[in-house]
Amino acid sequence: MDAGGGLGVQSVPSCCPLYHDAVELIGKRWTGAILGVLVEGGSLRFSEIAHAVPELSDRLLCERLRELERRGLVAREVYPGRPVRVEYALTEMGEDLAPALGEIQAWARRWLAG
Amino acid sequence: MDAGGGLGVQSVPSCCPLYHDAVELIGKRWTGAILGVLVEGGSLRFSEIAHAVPELSDRLLCERLRELERRGLVAREVYPGRPVRVEYALTEMGEDLAPALGEIQAWARRWLAG
Repeated sequence: MDAGGGLGVQSVPSCCPLYHDAVELIGKRWTGAILGVLVEGGSLRFSEIAHAVPELSDRLLCERLRELERRGLVAREVYPGRPVRVEYALTEMGEDLAPALGEIQAWARRWLAG
Repeated sequence: MDAGGGLGVQSVPSCCPLYHDAVELIGKRWTGAILGVLVEGGSLRFSEIAHAVPELSDRLLCERLRELERRGLVAREVYPGRPVRVEYALTEMGEDLAPALGEIQAWARRWLAG
């Protein structure tokens, strides 16, 4: 919230492209839910994420995880063994979203509950 | 961030429906940008919002503003005169999103700049 453009400056509104990119990335259908589950659960298997967001199809979960990997928010780790274990976890960049997601959660409880 | 479900609880991940609703509402294409401009600019005319988010069509801006009105985040005020002046502003519920949008903005500057 400073004079560098974007939120917080009265009387000269303009949408900050970085903010816009971020809010559309986080808010893309199901992405916010997936990030919330990973903030909460730490390193999780595909099936655990799918279980936590039951309405989400496997195809779409796969697509969203790939996008989050590509954007650097999620890391996919493969652990050798039989069967191979694959887990998804937030990177430092992804973890750093926790305060923003926490504020959204708090707002949701204040205004959307009941 | 407590044990009431949602973010912050290790080992029992599940997506809080209120959080999910909020993140998809805020993150819906262009909605985050419109909210950001209203946080910044206060009470604005349709044309001022359109100017601040230039890639957004009037049709879609109209649709998004109606949805935000319906959800209680934005109020539409009509000031009599010639011509009638119509302005859009955040309600208390909408203003209360400022901390969340500010965190997203801060994250975007840390990770998406340059």
